[in-house]
Amino acid sequence: MTRQPSASLLDALGNLLGPKGFSVDADAMAPWLTDWRGKYHGRAAAMLSPATTDEVAAIVRLCAEAQVALVPQGGNSGMVGGATPDTSGDQLLLSLRRMNRVRQIDEAGQLAVAEAGVILENFHNAVLAHGLRFPLTLGGKGSATIGGLVSTNAGGTQVLRHGSMRALTLGIEAVLPDGSIFDGLAPLKKDNRGYDLRHLFCGAEGTLGVVTAASLHLVPVAAARRTAWIGIDSPEDALLLLRRVDAAIGRELEGFELIPHNCLDAVLRHIPQTRAPLSVAQPWYVLLELAGESDPTLGEALEQQLATALDAGLIRDVVIAKSDSESEGFWRLRDSISEAERAEGPALQHDVSVPVDLMPAFIADNPRRLDIAFPGARALSFGHLGDGNVHHHVQPPIGVDGAGWIAEHGASVSRLVYSHVLELGGSISAEHGIGQMKRDIMAEIDSPARLTALRGVKAGLDPKGIFNPGKLIA
Amino acid sequence: MTRQPSASLLDALGNLLGPKGFSVDADAMAPWLTDWRGKYHGRAAAMLSPATTDEVAAIVRLCAEAQVALVPQGGNSGMVGGATPDTSGDQLLLSLRRMNRVRQIDEAGQLAVAEAGVILENFHNAVLAHGLRFPLTLGGKGSATIGGLVSTNAGGTQVLRHGSMRALTLGIEAVLPDGSIFDGLAPLKKDNRGYDLRHLFCGAEGTLGVVTAASLHLVPVAAARRTAWIGIDSPEDALLLLRRVDAAIGRELEGFELIPHNCLDAVLRHIPQTRAPLSVAQPWYVLLELAGESDPTLGEALEQQLATALDAGLIRDVVIAKSDSESEGFWRLRDSISEAERAEGPALQHDVSVPVDLMPAFIADNPRRLDIAFPGARALSFGHLGDGNVHHHVQPPIGVDGAGWIAEHGASVSRLVYSHVLELGGSISAEHGIGQMKRDIMAEIDSPARLTALRGVKAGLDPKGIFNPGKLIA
Repeated sequence: MTRQPSASLLDALGNLLGPKGFSVDADAMAPWLTDWRGKYHGRAAAMLSPATTDEVAAIVRLCAEAQVALVPQGGNSGMVGGATPDTSGDQLLLSLRRMNRVRQIDEAGQLAVAEAGVILENFHNAVLAHGLRFPLTLGGKGSATIGGLVSTNAGGTQVLRHGSMRALTLGIEAVLPDGSIFDGLAPLKKDNRGYDLRHLFCGAEGTLGVVTAASLHLVPVAAARRTAWIGIDSPEDALLLLRRVDAAIGRELEGFELIPHNCLDAVLRHIPQTRAPLSVAQPWYVLLELAGESDPTLGEALEQQLATALDAGLIRDVVIAKSDSESEGFWRLRDSISEAERAEGPALQHDVSVPVDLMPAFIADNPRRLDIAFPGARALSFGHLGDGNVHHHVQPPIGVDGAGWIAEHGASVSRLVYSHVLELGGSISAEHGIGQMKRDIMAEIDSPARLTALRGVKAGLDPKGIFNPGKLIA
Repeated sequence: MTRQPSASLLDALGNLLGPKGFSVDADAMAPWLTDWRGKYHGRAAAMLSPATTDEVAAIVRLCAEAQVALVPQGGNSGMVGGATPDTSGDQLLLSLRRMNRVRQIDEAGQLAVAEAGVILENFHNAVLAHGLRFPLTLGGKGSATIGGLVSTNAGGTQVLRHGSMRALTLGIEAVLPDGSIFDGLAPLKKDNRGYDLRHLFCGAEGTLGVVTAASLHLVPVAAARRTAWIGIDSPEDALLLLRRVDAAIGRELEGFELIPHNCLDAVLRHIPQTRAPLSVAQPWYVLLELAGESDPTLGEALEQQLATALDAGLIRDVVIAKSDSESEGFWRLRDSISEAERAEGPALQHDVSVPVDLMPAFIADNPRRLDIAFPGARALSFGHLGDGNVHHHVQPPIGVDGAGWIAEHGASVSRLVYSHVLELGGSISAEHGIGQMKRDIMAEIDSPARLTALRGVKAGLDPKGIFNPGKLIA
């Protein structure tokens, strides 16, 4: 068990970090004590904002000695409350946001070293200035930080081609729970010196120590991209389309997002300056993007694929973006779904994966199961069909008090969704992680062998339990 | 500390496994108690050969209760003594070789589930019958098993394009140190439920439990391949060639092996039915392979690249294999280097990696450092230049008693090599692992933070220390 920080510990931390790095001011801390979705509200004895890895290490040594809990936080845009302290007021918020240097950009080696607090969008811009691209993006790119992205093994919309954060992270620097600094930034292509700590810290949600920097893989700026907005009958047809496109031009296929008509409707209703790409509404949409070197080749390939699909009746309608800004507009529709859904009112969000083949069946069957158990409940599935990963939102029946319905039925609804996912061999968290939100349900329904192994890793690496206690695994 | 197995434990294991699965016969055990290179000789109280995952789990439960050590073993062709028991006679050899079923081959999904004891070459053939290919191979393919390959995160000659075993392993089944079965075979593209156990078991060398099966990624059989044997002046030139070829036709580049003339000489001397591909000897050779879909395209691309390189004076001579059997012949030369080197007499072998850019400097500088400290010592570097990974062998001076020289200077020579590697930010084990051979040197010279973390993982997952004690981390 961790302890309440003593006055002398807080003094020592204040002296170490100075006024820029140490705060107990309630107003200054407030924005960082509630998670992005407004679901979790915590308290903290202080907010620590170190500027260097050495300061992080000094903080951890002090807290390890005093057995005081640290809650690492990046952009505070996580989806599962993983960066929100508990309500005791005894935990210390460890903000990495001041560690925002891009330490190195190696053009020839196509890699960069970025500190944990670098905001994703800033990182995109920094490497773009060197003619390079970091091929991971997501709706929260204006706030999400490199450290948070590594620690949650973030996905996003380009996983199909480039993989998730794990695949793009070539090395990490981290401060371990005893305060020692692990320097694993060297981007070695092969290294078989035992358990892979890089992979262990990817997705560990700050429970094993804190990532302070990462070496990241870059790719050349795609000289050309082509984005299409496609109207389609069903997820089955979308999967058939995906397989066709993948077989023919899979190397260029960078995005394949599935969007139901009601998600688009919500975006058009709530997000200013958005418009529907197609004049006639369709039951489902696919946002498809190709990226490659040659513009004409790419355009021809895409047009040919889509013409064939239209002729075959596999798709109903399509528009190809004629400019970068039109392409951005399509992506803005996709990236605004979460915000629009929040504006619609409370909903239960499930970020789940199943084997790709089984995704259409899940999307079709789950609403039926829900409707039997919870009449009127409305399910929406959107997202990364090619990764076998959808965001599956369940909205309360129309006309009921949403918050009340969720309070009454939320846990049972989620249990129904997750049980269905497990039946199909899937995961109850495809990309958002476990955090606070799914900790108990995972402990309840996941495999005992897996849970035992997770607990063993946690106990072995953080024996005092000072890193992000209460998250991920209890 | 683990204990000596009692007579009643041995009885229980014998009853569990029957005569096919349990042996205390010295002759039957003998071949499995010495490692492939003949460097480590162990003893075992019994050899256990379970046929199913349930039998493995039952063995582990019995041994966990009795606190008796288990040493998992696949094909016994590892390079670091990782599968050889200690000399106490108290450990139990856990052979996975009877678990040799390919459980499933999914043509549409391009994946297969293979048990730990499936021999790599048999697995190649099994999937080939379905028109698919498992794109990892190495010299020991006739003995190496899937479980051993996963547990050592094996590399081989196609890592450049397809990655090492880690990249090809989509899921694992393992028995944990408490005897529970972790079923992580489902090939989910995204799964963020905490610490990644699949990556943790890849390269864990049987110290955290035992891998009993794996889901493996397959690729279509390459319709075409083109193999070239190239004479070249230096590793610097080889790196320039690699960069050119990679930029132009990197997607098809599957192999790029660097071979010094004296390695080829040794192969020609010791391995029957081998011949030099080029009529005039060259200082260095590159074995280059492209694989792709269209034969003519591939051939043209390769010829064009090599013609340009010849014109530019970047390469000295080249022959392109005109048939599959000629291509196999080139690979046989490469794959026979280890065997030929063994026939040459004792040598110190170092499997090291450095950042790719620094590899030519390492290959040039290390022999000079060695010659100053150990006059007459001869260094040979060969292997996977594109991965920043060479096998760096040091032979005793000509005319001295090799075994005696190694006994006297071996540890110091290796320390010089490894220190040089660490200076360059490299790894003292690129692909072979740590096992017994590098355990002490790693503990001596590697980063304390990394060692602490490895010890934490081991203690957390195998608190009784029954899995492969004495290997990897002490």
